[in-house]
This record gives sequence, C-alpha cells and structure tokens, in this order.
Amino acid sequence: MAQKEFSVVGKKTSRIDAYERVTGQAQYTGDVQLPNMLYARVLRSPHPHAKIVSIDTSKAEKLPGVKAVIHHQNAQVPWASGGHTHRRFIFNTPVRYVGEAVAAVAATNRHIAEDALALIEVKYEKLPHVLDPVEALKPDAPKISTNGNLSVGKGNFSAPITEQWGDVEKGFKEADRIFEDTYITKHVNNAQLERRESVAKWEGGKLTVWASTQGVSNARTDIAKDLGLPLSKVRVICKYMGGGFGNKNQAQDYDLMAAVLARVTGQPVKLEFTREDDFVGMHGRWASEQRYKIGVKKDGTITAVELNAVTNVGAYRKQSGNLSGTDFYQIPNFKKVVNPVHTNTVVGANYRAPAYPQSVFGFASFLDQIAHEMGVNPLDMFLKNRAQLAKGKIPYTSNAQEECIVEGAKQISWKEKWHQAGATSGVKKHGIGMALGGYPFRPGLGAATIRVNPDGTAHVLVGVVDIGTGAKTTMAIIAAEALGIPLNHIQLTNGDTDVTPYSVGESGSRTTCFTGTAVIAAAEDARKQIFAVAARQLKVQAEELDLKDGNVFVKSNPSQKLPLGKALSRSGELIGRATTNPSFKGVEGKSFAAHYAEVEVDTWTGHVKITRYVAVHDSGTILNRIPAESQIKGGVVQGIGMAFTEELLIDRPTAIPLNPNYRDAKVPTHLEVPEIEVTFIERYDPYGPFGGKVVGEPPITPAVATIANAIFNATGKRFKELPITPDKILNSLRA
Amino acid sequence: MAQKEFSVVGKKTSRIDAYERVTGQAQYTGDVQLPNMLYARVLRSPHPHAKIVSIDTSKAEKLPGVKAVIHHQNAQVPWASGGHTHRRFIFNTPVRYVGEAVAAVAATNRHIAEDALALIEVKYEKLPHVLDPVEALKPDAPKISTNGNLSVGKGNFSAPITEQWGDVEKGFKEADRIFEDTYITKHVNNAQLERRESVAKWEGGKLTVWASTQGVSNARTDIAKDLGLPLSKVRVICKYMGGGFGNKNQAQDYDLMAAVLARVTGQPVKLEFTREDDFVGMHGRWASEQRYKIGVKKDGTITAVELNAVTNVGAYRKQSGNLSGTDFYQIPNFKKVVNPVHTNTVVGANYRAPAYPQSVFGFASFLDQIAHEMGVNPLDMFLKNRAQLAKGKIPYTSNAQEECIVEGAKQISWKEKWHQAGATSGVKKHGIGMALGGYPFRPGLGAATIRVNPDGTAHVLVGVVDIGTGAKTTMAIIAAEALGIPLNHIQLTNGDTDVTPYSVGESGSRTTCFTGTAVIAAAEDARKQIFAVAARQLKVQAEELDLKDGNVFVKSNPSQKLPLGKALSRSGELIGRATTNPSFKGVEGKSFAAHYAEVEVDTWTGHVKITRYVAVHDSGTILNRIPAESQIKGGVVQGIGMAFTEELLIDRPTAIPLNPNYRDAKVPTHLEVPEIEVTFIERYDPYGPFGGKVVGEPPITPAVATIANAIFNATGKRFKELPITPDKILNSLRA
Repeated sequence: MAQKEFSVVGKKTSRIDAYERVTGQAQYTGDVQLPNMLYARVLRSPHPHAKIVSIDTSKAEKLPGVKAVIHHQNAQVPWASGGHTHRRFIFNTPVRYVGEAVAAVAATNRHIAEDALALIEVKYEKLPHVLDPVEALKPDAPKISTNGNLSVGKGNFSAPITEQWGDVEKGFKEADRIFEDTYITKHVNNAQLERRESVAKWEGGKLTVWASTQGVSNARTDIAKDLGLPLSKVRVICKYMGGGFGNKNQAQDYDLMAAVLARVTGQPVKLEFTREDDFVGMHGRWASEQRYKIGVKKDGTITAVELNAVTNVGAYRKQSGNLSGTDFYQIPNFKKVVNPVHTNTVVGANYRAPAYPQSVFGFASFLDQIAHEMGVNPLDMFLKNRAQLAKGKIPYTSNAQEECIVEGAKQISWKEKWHQAGATSGVKKHGIGMALGGYPFRPGLGAATIRVNPDGTAHVLVGVVDIGTGAKTTMAIIAAEALGIPLNHIQLTNGDTDVTPYSVGESGSRTTCFTGTAVIAAAEDARKQIFAVAARQLKVQAEELDLKDGNVFVKSNPSQKLPLGKALSRSGELIGRATTNPSFKGVEGKSFAAHYAEVEVDTWTGHVKITRYVAVHDSGTILNRIPAESQIKGGVVQGIGMAFTEELLIDRPTAIPLNPNYRDAKVPTHLEVPEIEVTFIERYDPYGPFGGKVVGEPPITPAVATIANAIFNATGKRFKELPITPDKILNSLRA
Repeated sequence: MAQKEFSVVGKKTSRIDAYERVTGQAQYTGDVQLPNMLYARVLRSPHPHAKIVSIDTSKAEKLPGVKAVIHHQNAQVPWASGGHTHRRFIFNTPVRYVGEAVAAVAATNRHIAEDALALIEVKYEKLPHVLDPVEALKPDAPKISTNGNLSVGKGNFSAPITEQWGDVEKGFKEADRIFEDTYITKHVNNAQLERRESVAKWEGGKLTVWASTQGVSNARTDIAKDLGLPLSKVRVICKYMGGGFGNKNQAQDYDLMAAVLARVTGQPVKLEFTREDDFVGMHGRWASEQRYKIGVKKDGTITAVELNAVTNVGAYRKQSGNLSGTDFYQIPNFKKVVNPVHTNTVVGANYRAPAYPQSVFGFASFLDQIAHEMGVNPLDMFLKNRAQLAKGKIPYTSNAQEECIVEGAKQISWKEKWHQAGATSGVKKHGIGMALGGYPFRPGLGAATIRVNPDGTAHVLVGVVDIGTGAKTTMAIIAAEALGIPLNHIQLTNGDTDVTPYSVGESGSRTTCFTGTAVIAAAEDARKQIFAVAARQLKVQAEELDLKDGNVFVKSNPSQKLPLGKALSRSGELIGRATTNPSFKGVEGKSFAAHYAEVEVDTWTGHVKITRYVAVHDSGTILNRIPAESQIKGGVVQGIGMAFTEELLIDRPTAIPLNPNYRDAKVPTHLEVPEIEVTFIERYDPYGPFGGKVVGEPPITPAVATIANAIFNATGKRFKELPITPDKILNSLRA
C-alpha cells in the first residue's frame, strides 16, 4: 500500500514541550508545591510473611510535626482496582513480602516523616514463607493467597493461562526432530528515572491527585472506585512524567495513601518514594521458567510448539503473568499453559512489553539452538518460520517482517560475518546473533477535543500522559495533519481529567492508535464546521472545500482559497470533538522487528562488548522520526540491562532484597551500550492513524535473545538463565 | 407564556465553589505564586498634561533587587485594543492625566519595587490642562487628543452619539407643556474589592497571564493582538475574581506591562495595584451634563424627548460615553445628541450598566419633577409612559414592566404613603419615590464543551469568569437542566483560554444568554450521542429517548429506563460541543425594573436614612434565586453610594485626585444600607436560556433616581447634581 503525502507526519520533529523540559519549567509531580503541604513516608515490612499482632503509633504521633499515622487498623480503603485478582487493602495483614506497606506517616517535613517511621512499633508474628514459584506450587508450601499459590482470578487473570490452536500431537508426529529445553528469566525492576510520587488535596468533597501515573483517566477511574467517589469528584493531573515502563499503570495504593492522609489531616499531602521504595515496594517484570517442546522438519520448518511455564507474580497478582514470545512465527500447531504463581516476593507485573522479552529470550534462543543442532543457518531458520498468519490463520493488518529480517541481515552483513558457534579464535571471540520481536497493535477507545481559534490556530485537548515517548508531540502532529494546519499553530493540553478527554493511558503502545484515531475524528468534526463557515465566504458548497497548510481552498480550483484565520475571523471559536472505538474484524495487528548484534566476548574476564547493534522495525508509518528512533534505542538498552546485569537478588533465609538500587541492580548507562542503528520499514497500515502501528513496546522484545544468540555464536555456550553475567560466562567456558 | 417544568433551574442554589471560597482555597490572581517571581509597581504622572523631556532610570536600576525599568522609550507596545479610539501606547508622552503610567519597575520584592519608583528621575514639560468637559469644548481649550477634545473615533466611538425616531418638532407641537432642565452626574469609581493584579510568565514563545479580568477570551484576543502573537501562544487564566463592575473588561495595559517586564527579565512578574492605583489609574463611570427638553400632554403622556449632553470620557476614550436612561419609556418622538469629551482627568468608561444610572437619574428625576409641576401622581406618570414598544415601534421579546410597577407600588403601599412633596412636618421628613430601570438583553456568540463521564457525571468547560455573579453556578445549572442530570453530578472548569472555550466576557449582562445558550446546545450534542448508545441497550430508536434526573428513559414508557451511568458504562466519555451565535430578528430584548424607596430626611443634619427599599424586576426566568437576589441588592447598594457619597474629587489647580480610596470616596457598607426587598416577576422569555433574561446590570439603573425622587417627596427640593450630600440638602433647605 502506498504512503500518503503528508505535510506534518513523518518528519523529524522536536518535542513541542522541549523548551519547558530543557529549562526546567516542566512541572513533574515532585515539583508540585502547595500551601500547608505535608510530606508522607511509608513504613515497610521487614518480613516476607507475617501477621501484624499490634501497631503502636503513640511515640511517632508525639514527635513534633507528625500529623497522622495510618495503617491497616485505621485506613481500610478497599482496593479492588488496578488489576488485582483478590481483595486486598492499602495495608494488609498478614504482610506477604519484604517491602509491603505497613503504615504511612504525614508530617510537616520529610525528615520528621522519616524519623517517625522508626518510632512506629509493630509486633509481627512470623509465618513460613516461600520465594521460588516452583516450590510454591508444592502441596506443603506455605499458603500466601487465600486461593492457593497458583494465582486464580477472573477474566484475564484466570489461571493457568492457556492458548492453543491446531493439534500439537499431530504436529509433533509430522516433525523430523523434537527438541525440549527450559529457559529461565529473573525479576527485573522497571527502574524508571522518576520515583513514584503522589500529591493529594481535598477541596470539600473533591479530591485532586497529582500522580506520577501512565494514565490519568484510568488512575481517576480506580481512585474514584476505591474511594467511592463519582468520577467528577476526582481530578488526576500528570503533565510531565519521568518514565514508568508499566510500573505506573496501575497500583494506586500510594495515591490512595496520600488521599487518606490528606483527608485525615485536612492538608495537602505529598507522598514520596525513595529509590529503594521503588525497587522493593512496587513491581518489576515477572520472572519465568519456560519449558518448550518444539517439533521441526529437516529443513527447519516448525510443525508444533508446546510451552509449559510458571511465572512469579509475587505476593499479589496485578497483571497477567503471561508469556507471548512465540507470537512472531508461523506455528501451525500450538499449545501454551502458563501458571502464574504467588510467592513471598515483591509483585511481578507490567514492564515494557510485559509478556514478551522473557519468552522471546526463551523461544528465540531455543530456535537458534535448534538451528545449530540441525546445521541450519539461524537466518534461514528465522526466515523460514516468519509470521505469515496470526495464530496460524488470521491475516495481519500489515506485515513487513520479512523485509525487516532481510534488511537487518544486509546491514549487519550476516552472510559475511556469520560463522559456526565458537569458531573464532583468540582471547576476544567474535559472535553474531539475531532474533525476532514486535508487539500487538490493537484498536480501542479514544477521545479528543480540538478548539479552533478565530485566527486559525488550534488547541488540542487529550488525556494522554507523555511518559517520555513524545506522545504530546505525536498528538499535535496528528492534529495538525488531520486539520490541515502547520504544527506550530497547535497548542496542546494533556493529562488533566478535569479538562482533557479520556485517554487509554500510556501503556501497551496504545496511545497513538487509540487517542490518535480520536484526534483525527475530532479534526474531521472541526473541519466540517470550518467548511460550513468558509463555504459562505467562498460562495461554494462545503463539500467542495479542503484545508491544508492553513488554507481553506476549493478542491477543483486550489487558487480559490482563504487563510483559515481569515475564514474564521467572525465565527468565533469552533470546537471539534470525538469519542472513537474502532475494532478489527478478521484481522490482527502487529508491529514487527528483527534485531541483530555483533559481540566480542572476553574469555579472560567474561565481559561481553556489543560492537554493533542493528534494529529494523515495521511500525507502519513513522509519525515522528526523532522519538521513534529514541524508543527503539531505549528499548534495546533496557534489553541489554536485562541480558547482562539486572536482577533483583533476594536473600534466601530472610527474603530481603539485596540490591534495590541502580548501582547494584546495574541499569546500563551510555558507557555500557553501543550506538543502536535503527531502520524503519515503513509499510502503510490501513488500520492505523495515518498508517502508523505501535512503536514503544517492540524494541525491548528481541534484544535479550539477540544478545544471547550472539554470545552463543561467539562462545558455543548456550546461556539459558538470565542475566548472563561474567561469572556465568567464565564458569561455562571453564566447564 | 407559561413557564416550563424545571428540575434544576429556578431553585435557591448555593455556589458550586462555595467551599473553595469560604475556606480560602480559591486562588485569585493575587494568590498566584511562581518560582523566581518578581514584583512590579507603576510610576504615575503627577501632572495632568505634560511632555516627558527625559527619564533617568540609572539610580533605580542600581538599587539592589531591581531587575528592570520600562517606560515610553524602551517599551513601545502598541495598544490598539480595549476599545480605544486613537493610537496610544502603554506609556505615552505627553501624559494626559494625573495618574497616567509613566514607568514600571520589576524587582525581587514589593518594597524594593516601591523604593525604586522614587529613584526614577523624570523631567516633565508642563502643558496647559482642562478638567471640565464643557470648558474642554471651547475653541481656546488646551488640546488633549490629536483629534480635538470632542472624542471622535470609529464605529461605536463616532462622536457625537446621535439617535432619533419620530419627529421631535412635531412631538413638541402636540405637547400641552414643554419642560427643559439640566442634570449633572460625577465621576464615580467602580471600587471593586479586588485591586487589579496581573502575573505574566513566558515559556519560550508562549505567554501565560493570570489576569484579574472580566473576560479571559477577550483579554487573550487583545494581548495577542497587541504583542503580535497568535491566539494559541497566549494563555489567560482567571479562576476567581474579586469584582470589576466594568473596570476589568478592557484596558490590558497592566497585563502588557507585566508581560513586557517578564520578557525583559526572563522571570515571571506580578504587577500589583494599590487601592489608590485603582482609583487614579484605571477608570470610573463617565460624568455627564444632561439637558432634557420634554413635551407632555395634560394627562402626563410624553409626546417628545430631546436630550443634549456632554459626557467626560477623560484623557483616553475606552468606551461609548453614551447616555441611555430614556430606554424604559414609550417615547413617540425622540432625539439624542451625546458628546463624549476629552479632559485631563482619569478615563471615564464602563461601570455597571454603563450609560444608564446617570441618565436614569436625570430623566426619571425630571419626569418626577414634571409630574409634580403638572399635579400628576408620579406612579401614574410612570405607568402612563411605560415601555410598550422599543424605539416607539419594535416589540419586546417579553415585557413585564407594568407588573413590576404595579407590584412594587403595592408592596411599598404607594397609594397610602405618597403625599405631596415636602408635606410631612417635623425634623425628620418622610418621603417616597420611584423610578424605572432595566438593561438590554441581547444575543451573541457563545461556546461550550460538556464531557459526559461513563458514570453519568459530567464536566462542563466554559470560558466564563465568575466575577462574583455566580456565573459558574449558573452555567452548571443550565448544563444540569439541559443534560437532564442532577446538579451535583456536574464539575465545571472555567476561565482558562488554553482549555475552556470562548466566552464573551462577564460584562453587559451577557454571559447567561451568550454562553448559557451554547451550554444548552452542547448538552443537546451530548444527548444525541447518549441516546445513540442507550438506544442499543434499550432496544428502541434514539429519537424515542429522553434523559431527566440522571435516567435515560423511553418517552412513551418512562418506566423503561436506564441510569445514565449504566447506559454509558462501556461507551467511554462522550463529548458535547457547541458554538452558537443566535440573533434577534424584529424584536428587542430588555429586562425591566421598578424601584421604590421610602426615606427619612433629617432636616437638622441633612442626613438621609432609607427606611424601606423595594426592587421589583422582570428578568425572565430566574435560574438561581440566591445570586439573582444578591445581584439586585448589590446593584442598589452601588446606586446608594452614587446617590449620596461617591465622587472622585479633583483639585482644580493641580488636577490631583483628592479622595482616591474607600474612606474618602465613601462606598456604602452594610451600616449605610437598608434591607433591599427583592421581587422577581418571572415572565418566561422565549429568546433566553430557559426563559431567562439579564439580571446583573438592571438593579443599579433606577436606584439613584428612586432615592432622589424620595428625597424630593420628603423635602420638596429637587437635587439635580450628584452626589446628594448632607451639605447640599442643608443648603437647599435653608434657601
């Protein structure tokens, strides 16, 4: 499908809020200062599993400056939202993991609040605990959830998660060889730069929460539900946000704590996390143990895949705990059983492309291994089994996966550089690897308002939070293109539920598609009104008019035109609005990616240096090249961290997290990553806004497997458990 | 015309923002605090007319903490907006009145800014000046405007202002008697509680102004025009506002000064007025000298009216300078010539019902005098000449003036209490008086957005500023009634040009009609979408549905219904929007009022005590009884001040205002006013939102004349020049 001619879309556009960001004028939640504001801190459980026998807050309350202490006995806000599968509260007994909130203090300053935490006397009755999900499923394991440790909930949270099509038994019979193996991934923290903060303020019966959230609309819905308020009485504001990567979609516990403290004290309350709070108190990516059985024909064609897995959703289940890394292949017969399991550890939940990097690591490593064992070049193995129909039968809305694979192979010079595993000599061994990734592209509910000023400039109102992706700029670009005016004529307001329309929330790579579609429809609504006004002036029918680059013109005679500001000068402001909720019928959407890496493994130190990294993506039309490239680079960097260094280590006897910080659960910096070479194969997708699909989630999905496969190619050693640390490499090379 | 059945309209509704107001959480412009904010003060001219020879700011600039000094040489922002008729700047030379801005200083705190003013050395070359408008028209008077002192401008500002219908010469021939006399009113300051403040902040090329304005949309338009910015790059915010009464419609000079200082310094700037600044630096009601010639038949019927007047618009013409007090009568032949004149005094411009109280004082006093001289009871005189057709021929949209007159006469027991002028004996003499007033009710441009939440609550977005009238509550009432949901399900956002739609500005009693009409249309747009969604669930056609009290129901079978929150639970937010611009064709709108007062005049002290005050108003449907009654009371109180005490006294030789403050230009407090008894005659007006007309301006219009007529009835003395002070009364009684 040919691309459209665009005026605004597809350029390299700087962020519309660049000035505010670089001058420090951008107001993040942490910057919010209100008169009489109190500061709140959270006391956390030192035990992985314990009943709270008593809480004595008298000493804390006597500390001058302390205004309130809340805990499970005096602040029982029911928590049913945020995707939890069983009833819990903002404070619970028994506590179920080290780091679970036990109490919260509001005081006149941060230091007093912190001092007060030490004065709260909690008596615990310790209960037996379990950390490993496989152990947790044994009959005699300590019971964490009232439903048992195999996490059973409703809807998406039913357990086990099963999916199947075709007939795997038949598929395995058709196979020439059958392979079985197990891959393991660990709990990795989202580690976004901005710690969680929440400022709550009551004005009579109206609650305003400045939240560090990925979605003000959903945060409002959850907070309103949990506090029993109508939606109109809860305002959630998030204008600037310092990352979340899925950590800030749900779990408004801390917003609720701030709200309760503000209500109790009658003052605004700012609840702030430390970096350690973020690591131990929220959630990270769920760990997994994935057992694959794969049937393959002699030529490498997959005939059947069976996956049996457990995932560790921690003490409370917030999200699916699913594994979806097999999505990017043509698999005729498929069966998957994933068991999300409760343990006495911090919650395992959404982190960028939640169910994918773990399972892409497992499946694409295993395919690479099978290629090796069958003497097939991995490039051929991946090409042969490329995605052609979703779930074996459903057409894609668009699919340039093959072009991604071919283009990436060309760029990395696969044919010239690939060699047999471990074939290079010397201290530093060369390796090359690849893997496939992507992410589903779905339609859904969006809303937008566009106010067109009499001078032809316009105000776009959208609920989106810009979590760092440049979503504000994307929405402005879409509005400018759809209206037909220059981008610098657009002023955009976002992230404030009192004034901006519903937005799905910036997660699951949904914003551009969901809200972007609504922006286009709102622009259409505005254009209708513009044409009605301009038609009278141009003495034609409204249907004869078009609007582009700020000029209303007669389609059949473009020189008959009016600047928009002139057309509207007497008509006042016109308002376009839309609520859109499209659906895909008989098609499935997906963005695709093929990643390639070259590495140099130092056989003396076990250190791996990535010497080249090529990422080729099919995300449909790229609406703005600068942030799109940044997304790819950022995703790969997070994959590099997951591959090499990041893991929340938990002390077995005490269950205490040992490295809840950037230094010890090492997040890569510029020093540790190569230049990421990004290429987009721009296949116009007829279902996406201006042909665009999803961009944010895909790049992290194949990165870990790509690196692991390159290490295998260098060393001939297959690493089946993350992270691939120097000690594991050295041990493996010595073995 | 019968009234509709209303669910929300017509009750006694407390303000929706009452909590914020009484707890001090309401943020007025003066409450705005920004990081690094500077404070600005204005240096004013001590001379009524002088060229600025030089300005030396070096000493001021050396004062530690001073960041910028701007004046006519370095801050030439052209000022074409705000209704000015000739080109002027934010700083001018020559300066044309005592109090005109000469320079502005921004400093790190208020005290430094004030100290710096004293360090600015300005050399003036004094020019001859003139204070009296009649003097100013003489050929040898000093020239103030380049166009001459008879203010000549464009459009509404052409001079003289003339209006006529019928044939006055013929009318005077038909008269049995012809009367001629002159009435004089003085410059009265608006004296609103909130002094003018302005906070300006630049973010790159985007200017945000927190203004104390009566209209954010118009303030934005003017600021954008004056600074050469697109509308999208200027944001004007006014969430709470402490009164303006016409003083804060236009004249964004001080917003512009703050903006220029903020741009020069790179820091946010708050420019604050002192109380004296407000009296000498803005404007008050234009003074007038009105010469009437009235022809009357024996029975009191008016045959012709001729008015020749001069009004003092001061050094710059901001508004019309018109006189319109003859509007409330049936006048078959009419001719008016009003000459707005420039003098070297502070500007005379809009103050509540701008052209009316002066002229109602003159005309209704004179009618009362004519009734006296002809031996007709004033009640009969006013009834006989009541308004039946506008301009002698145009039907009114609705008219309950006669009922107002009759009802008020009944309430005050006119027949029992009226006596011949000066007929009572004793030291304290009883008097009773009446007059007619009102204000035009016009249609015009409005816009509104209503976001309906999935739980059935709704967000209304309107540009209106609530200047104290309760307009926010009115808009919420209209939205609730029009949507069909309870008022407490409405959340309203107002007064922020980045997010709220255009509003006409709270002046001229236009908001309820202009923006209220748009709110109804936006609700209709939302209802259409609601019915489309609910029709699917109720399995009927959308046209069969209605929505009331939060329930969607089938009109033919109201028990077949769905709570709105249930109907929309899966549909997401729906957005209604409207831009409306109706016009009246062949009809004229007017609200009417008849006021009655009883007074007790102390013939020893000259003090007048108002013992009873009855105000009967035809404002159509009353949408909210509490603020409507408050409007009537407030208007009368301002009339009492104008009648008795308020006048900006100017020293003749120096032209310096002598009493620019609340104490010396005495504004009445509760101690000085009686209980105002308010009655509404609710005639449904088919052209108004839910039958409503205008409320805010009318009550001040007849108040002064009502009191003057009561004093005449008490004393037999006619006071033809305001204010009617004790010394004037004593002098008159002695004469």
